[in-house]
Amino acid sequence: MSGNSGVLIALISGIAALVFVVYLVSYILKQDQGNEKMQKISKMVQLGAKAFLKTEYKYVFSFVLVIAIIFAIAPIIWKNVFPDRPMLELGIHTAICFVVGGLVSAAAGYIGMSIATRSNARTTEAARTKGMNGALDIAISGGAVMGMSVVGLSLTGLCIMWLIYHDPVAVNGYAMGASLVALFARSGGGIFTKGADMGADLVGKVEAGIPEDDPRNPAVIADNVGDNVGDVAGLGADLLESYVEAIIATVAIAFSLTLATKADTLLPYISSDQFTSLMVIPFLIAAAGIGSSIVGIMFVKMGTGKNPQAALMNGTYIAAILTVVLSYFIINKIGVPFEDSFGVYTKLGPFWANVAGIVSGIIVGFTSEYFTSGHYRPVQKLAESSQSGPAITVTGGISVGMMSTAIPTVILAAAIILSYKLSGMYGVALAALGMLATTGMIVSVDSYGPIADNAGGMAEMAGLDKSVRGITDNLDAVGNTTAAIGKGFAIGSAAFAALSLVAAFIGATHLTNVELTDPQVMAGLLIGAMLPFLFCSLLFGAVSKCAFEMIAEVRRQFREIKGLMEGKADPDPTTCVDISTRSAIKGMLVPGFLAILSPVVAGFILGPKGLAGMLVGAVAIGLMLGIQMANSGGAMDNGKKYIEAGHFGGKGSDAHKAAVVGDTVGDPLKDTVGPSINILIKLMAVISLVLAPLFAVL
Amino acid sequence: MSGNSGVLIALISGIAALVFVVYLVSYILKQDQGNEKMQKISKMVQLGAKAFLKTEYKYVFSFVLVIAIIFAIAPIIWKNVFPDRPMLELGIHTAICFVVGGLVSAAAGYIGMSIATRSNARTTEAARTKGMNGALDIAISGGAVMGMSVVGLSLTGLCIMWLIYHDPVAVNGYAMGASLVALFARSGGGIFTKGADMGADLVGKVEAGIPEDDPRNPAVIADNVGDNVGDVAGLGADLLESYVEAIIATVAIAFSLTLATKADTLLPYISSDQFTSLMVIPFLIAAAGIGSSIVGIMFVKMGTGKNPQAALMNGTYIAAILTVVLSYFIINKIGVPFEDSFGVYTKLGPFWANVAGIVSGIIVGFTSEYFTSGHYRPVQKLAESSQSGPAITVTGGISVGMMSTAIPTVILAAAIILSYKLSGMYGVALAALGMLATTGMIVSVDSYGPIADNAGGMAEMAGLDKSVRGITDNLDAVGNTTAAIGKGFAIGSAAFAALSLVAAFIGATHLTNVELTDPQVMAGLLIGAMLPFLFCSLLFGAVSKCAFEMIAEVRRQFREIKGLMEGKADPDPTTCVDISTRSAIKGMLVPGFLAILSPVVAGFILGPKGLAGMLVGAVAIGLMLGIQMANSGGAMDNGKKYIEAGHFGGKGSDAHKAAVVGDTVGDPLKDTVGPSINILIKLMAVISLVLAPLFAVL
Repeated sequence: MSGNSGVLIALISGIAALVFVVYLVSYILKQDQGNEKMQKISKMVQLGAKAFLKTEYKYVFSFVLVIAIIFAIAPIIWKNVFPDRPMLELGIHTAICFVVGGLVSAAAGYIGMSIATRSNARTTEAARTKGMNGALDIAISGGAVMGMSVVGLSLTGLCIMWLIYHDPVAVNGYAMGASLVALFARSGGGIFTKGADMGADLVGKVEAGIPEDDPRNPAVIADNVGDNVGDVAGLGADLLESYVEAIIATVAIAFSLTLATKADTLLPYISSDQFTSLMVIPFLIAAAGIGSSIVGIMFVKMGTGKNPQAALMNGTYIAAILTVVLSYFIINKIGVPFEDSFGVYTKLGPFWANVAGIVSGIIVGFTSEYFTSGHYRPVQKLAESSQSGPAITVTGGISVGMMSTAIPTVILAAAIILSYKLSGMYGVALAALGMLATTGMIVSVDSYGPIADNAGGMAEMAGLDKSVRGITDNLDAVGNTTAAIGKGFAIGSAAFAALSLVAAFIGATHLTNVELTDPQVMAGLLIGAMLPFLFCSLLFGAVSKCAFEMIAEVRRQFREIKGLMEGKADPDPTTCVDISTRSAIKGMLVPGFLAILSPVVAGFILGPKGLAGMLVGAVAIGLMLGIQMANSGGAMDNGKKYIEAGHFGGKGSDAHKAAVVGDTVGDPLKDTVGPSINILIKLMAVISLVLAPLFAVL
Repeated sequence: MSGNSGVLIALISGIAALVFVVYLVSYILKQDQGNEKMQKISKMVQLGAKAFLKTEYKYVFSFVLVIAIIFAIAPIIWKNVFPDRPMLELGIHTAICFVVGGLVSAAAGYIGMSIATRSNARTTEAARTKGMNGALDIAISGGAVMGMSVVGLSLTGLCIMWLIYHDPVAVNGYAMGASLVALFARSGGGIFTKGADMGADLVGKVEAGIPEDDPRNPAVIADNVGDNVGDVAGLGADLLESYVEAIIATVAIAFSLTLATKADTLLPYISSDQFTSLMVIPFLIAAAGIGSSIVGIMFVKMGTGKNPQAALMNGTYIAAILTVVLSYFIINKIGVPFEDSFGVYTKLGPFWANVAGIVSGIIVGFTSEYFTSGHYRPVQKLAESSQSGPAITVTGGISVGMMSTAIPTVILAAAIILSYKLSGMYGVALAALGMLATTGMIVSVDSYGPIADNAGGMAEMAGLDKSVRGITDNLDAVGNTTAAIGKGFAIGSAAFAALSLVAAFIGATHLTNVELTDPQVMAGLLIGAMLPFLFCSLLFGAVSKCAFEMIAEVRRQFREIKGLMEGKADPDPTTCVDISTRSAIKGMLVPGFLAILSPVVAGFILGPKGLAGMLVGAVAIGLMLGIQMANSGGAMDNGKKYIEAGHFGGKGSDAHKAAVVGDTVGDPLKDTVGPSINILIKLMAVISLVLAPLFAVL
C-alpha cells in the first residue's frame, strides 16, 4: 500500500467523524430546552463558558503566535542542523503544523463545549418528560459531539498536514500545538472549576448552610461552567493530545528506524517500502478506531431500552473489540514480518503489542474503579476512618491513592517489556495507540458525565420535582464505572505515549549510550522527578487563590445584595465567572512557562542525554502522582458519598463533616493537579522532540 | 600509606569516640534528677522505651538471624559466582559482617536511648536550678551520647571487620545489617511515636479538652516514649546507616575500579598501591569527622555562657570546617593525582567533591529552614490560609512541601555533576561522605531536640513553675535551626549515598550499557518509582491503625478509671505503651518484607539492569517525597505554632482549629513516612549491592 492512500483513508474517516458530529448536533438542537428558568440558567452557563474560552484562547494563541514566529524566523538555527535542506522550509512547515495543531484542539474544545452547555437543560427536560432513557440519549449525544470532534478534527488536520508536507519532522509541531492548548485547557480549566467549586461550597454549604447548587449562591453558575470547562473541554484537549502524540510517536519511531543504522535490533533489515507501511499503520488504526467509536455510540443511543449502565459499558466494549479486530486485519495485511524476541517470525508483533496496550488500559481502569468506588473495601474503610476526624480522613485518602499505584505500575511495566519484546519501541508506541484508538468513545462517555451532572444542578436551580433530580443523579452514577476505564486509558496511554516520545527523541537526536550512571542523566532524572512537584505546587497555589477570591466575592454578595438569602433577589453570577476566569489564566502563566521552558533550558544546560533523563524522570514520577492524586481524590469523594448514603451516621454527623474536608482536599487533586501532570510530561516530551534536530548538533 | 595503618587510625578514632561517650555518661548520671514525681515519670519513660526496644530487637534479630543463616549456608549459590574462591568463606564472612552491623546499630540505639531517657528529668531539674545554660549543657550531653555512640560504634565495628577480613565484598554485609536495624528503628519508631501522639492529642486535646502533656492522659507517657523511640533511636539508626554506607560505597567504588578495565574514564591508569590509598581515604575522613565532632560538642558545652542558639550553631560549623581542613590534608597527602574533566592535573579532585557535598548539604538545610520556619513567608502564608478552613490548610501544606523540592534538587543535581567531573563516581561517593563525616555532631544536635521536648513535658506533668517550661520551650526552639541543617545533610547524603551504592552495584555486576531506552530499565524505573508510594501507603495505614487503637484505649480509661478526670486517680500508661509497641511491630512487617524482597524479586525477574533502573527510580522519587513530606509536615507544624503565637486569632480560633488538623496530617508525614523513605531506598540499594555477585552471573 502506498503511503498516500493509507493516509487518505484516515482522512476520510476523520471527515466521517465530523459528519457524525453534524448529525448529533442537529439532533440535540431539535430537543426541547425546558421552561424559561431552565433556559435562562442554561444560557448563563453557555455565556460563562464562552467567556472563559475566549479569554483562554486569547492567551494561548499569544503563546502560539510567539512560538510559531520563533520557529519560522529562526532559519539560522536550522541552518546548522540540516545544511542540506532548505532550512527556511522546515522552520515554516513546523510553525504551520504547530498553529494548525493548536487551532484544531481549540476548535474541538469550542464545539464540544458549546454543545455540552446546550445539552444540559435538554437532558433535564428529557428526564422530566421521557425519563431515564430519553435523558441518557441526549447526554450521550452531547458527550459524543465532544468525543467525535476531538478525533475527527485532530485526525483530519494531521492527515492534511501529512499529505501537504510529507515530513515526519515538521509534523511533530502539530502535536506540540495540540499539547500547548491542552495545557491551558486542562490546567486552566482545572483551576477554574475547582476554584469555583471550593468557593461555592465553603461559603454556601459550610458558612451559610444552604444546599449544593442552591440558586441563591452566586458561585453556582461558575461551578457549573467549571464542570464544562474542566471536565469537558479540558479532558477533551488532554486526550486529543495523547491521541495525536501516539500517532506521531509511532510515525517518528518508524522514521528514526530508517535513519539509524541499527537503532532497533528487532527490525534490522527491511526495505524502504516496508518502512512506509510502518508509518501508515498508525493512521489506519486511528481510522479503525473512529469507525468503531461511531458504532459504539450508536449502540448506546439505540440500546437505551435496556439497562443504561449496561448500554454504556457494552458500547465501550464494542468499540474496543471492533478496533482490535480491524487492527488485526490492517497489520496482517500491510505489516512487516520479522523475528521477535520470542523467536517467532511474524508480521503480528505490533498487533499483539497493540492488544497488550488495550488490556493493560482496562486493568488500570478497573484498579481505579476498585480503589475509588463505594462498592469496595478501600472507600468503605476510608469512610469508616472519617469517624476519627478530618486529619485521619485526609491521611487515609492519600494512603489509598498511594496504594492504588502498585497494580497499574506493575501492569504497565509488564506491558512495556512485552510490547518491546514483540516489536521494539515501535511496539511500545503501538501499545499506546491501542489504548487511544477508541478515544472518540472514551471522550464521549467522559463528557457525558458533566452533562448529567449539570442537568442535575439545573433541576435543582429550576426547582423541578425531586424525581427529575433522582434520574439525573442516577445518570451521573451510571457513567462512573465506564469513566473509570476511560481514566485508566488516559493515564496508561499518557505514560506510554510519553515514553514513546522520549524514544523518538532519543532516535531523532541520534543519541547512543544514554546510560543510567552518566552524571548528566542522573542529574536529569532528579530534576525531571522534581518538576511535577513544582508544577503541582504552583497549581495548588492557583486553585487556593481562586477559591480565596471566590469566597470573598460570595460573602460580599450575601452581605450586600438585599433579599438574596430570602430568595427575593437574584445573585450576580457574572462576577464569579470573571474571577474564576482571571484566576485561571493568571494561575496558568507561571506553570505554563515552566512546562515550556524546562526542556529548552535542560537541553542546553544538561545536553540531550540529560534532557532524556529529565523526561524519563518526569514520566516515572508523573505517572505515580497522576494515579495517586486521581484515586485519592476519587476515594475521598466517594467516601463522602458513602457516608451520605446513610453509613456511619450519615449526613450531618461528625464523620460526614470530616469526609467533607477530605472531599475538599481531594477535589483539586483529582480534577486540577493530577490530570495536569499528564499534560506537563507530554508537553515537555513533545517540545523536546520538536527541538531534537537542534539538540542533535549541540 | 599502607591500608592497615590507615584503618588502624580510624579504629583508634572510633574508640576515642566511645571513651568520650563514657565520659559524657558519667557526667550526666552525676546530675540531680529532680523531685520524686519527676523521677517517677522519667522512670516510666525509661521503662517504656526499654520495653519497646526489647520487642523491636527481638523481631529485627529474628530477621537478621534468618538472613544470616541464608547467607552462611548458601555456598551453592556462591559456588556459581566465585568458582575460584573458597565460597563458603565469603558467605560466612558476609553473614558475620551482617550480624555485627546489625548489633552495632542496635547497641548504639540502646545506649543512646537509655541516656536520653535519663537526661530528660535532669534537664528539667537543671532548668529549674541552673537556668537555660545548665539545661542546655545536660541536653546536649545527652544528645552527644547518642551521636558519638553512633559514629564510635559503627566505625569501630567496620574497622574491625575490615582488619579481620580485608574483603570489600563481604563488608557490604555490615552496611546491610545496619540498614535492616535502621528500617525497624526508623519506621517502627515512627509508627510508635505518631500513633501515640495522634491518639493522645485526638482524645485529650480535642475530645476531653485537657491540655497537651496533661498527666491525666494515659497516652502521654507513650507519646514521650515515642519521642525517644522515633526521634532519638530512629534518627540515630538512620544516620548510622548512611554513614556506614557512604564509607562502604566509596570503598566499593574504589574496589570496582580495580576490577573493571575502564569502568571510570577519569581514573584509568593507576597502580594497585594507589587504589589502596583510594580505599583508605574514606576511613581517614571518617576519623577526621569524629575528632572534629568531639571538638564541636565540647565547644557547645563550654560556650554556653553566651547565646545558646549561637553556641549550637557555631559548634556545628566548627565541626564541619575542621573536617574539611583535615580532609584537605588527608587527600593531599595520600590522594592519587589524575586529570579531571576540567583538564586540571591534581590529587585534590576528591577533596573538592567532598566540599561540594558539604556545601550542598548546608544549602539543602537552609532551604528546609526557609520553607518550615515561622520566620519566613511560606509558613506565614500557610497560617493565613488556615482562616479558610482545614482543607485549604492541608492543601497549602502539601503545596509548600512540593515547592520546597525545587532548590534542593537543582543543588544536588549540580553537586552530582560537579563531583563526577572532579573525580568520577568516586567523587560522588565522597560528596556523600563529606556531608556525613560530621554525623557525630549532627546526631548530637538532633537528639538534643527530643530531650529538651521531653524535659518540657516533664515540667508540665510534675506541675513545676511555668518559668521552667519556658526555659525548656526555648531550648526546644533553639535546636530547630541547627536541626534543619542536620535534616538537609540527612536527606542530601541519603540521595548521594544511595546513588553511590547504585554505582557500586553496577560496578560489582560488571554491567555495561544500562541504557534508559532498555525496556528492562524503563520497567524498573517505573516500578522503582512506585515502591516508595506503596511503602508510604502501608506506613500511613499502620499509623492510623495505631492511633485508632490508642484512641479506643484512652477513651476506655477516661470512662472506666473513676476519679481520673478529677485528678484523684492515676491513668495506666503501660497499656498505651503496649499498644504502640505492638502496632509498631505489626505495622512494620509488611513494609519490611516489601523493602527486603523487592530488590531480590526485581533482580531475578527484571535482571540486574532492571534492578539498577528500579533503584534509580526509587532514589529519584524517594528524594522528592522525602523532602516534600518532611517540609510539608514541618510547615504545618510551625504554621500552627505561628497561630498559637497570637496571629490570625490565636489559640482557639477557627484558624487554629484548621491548623491543628493540618498539624495532625503533617505529623506522620514528617516523623514517620517521610524519613522512612530514606531507609527504604538505602536498604534496597544495599541489599542489591550485597547480592550483586549473584546477579552478576544471572
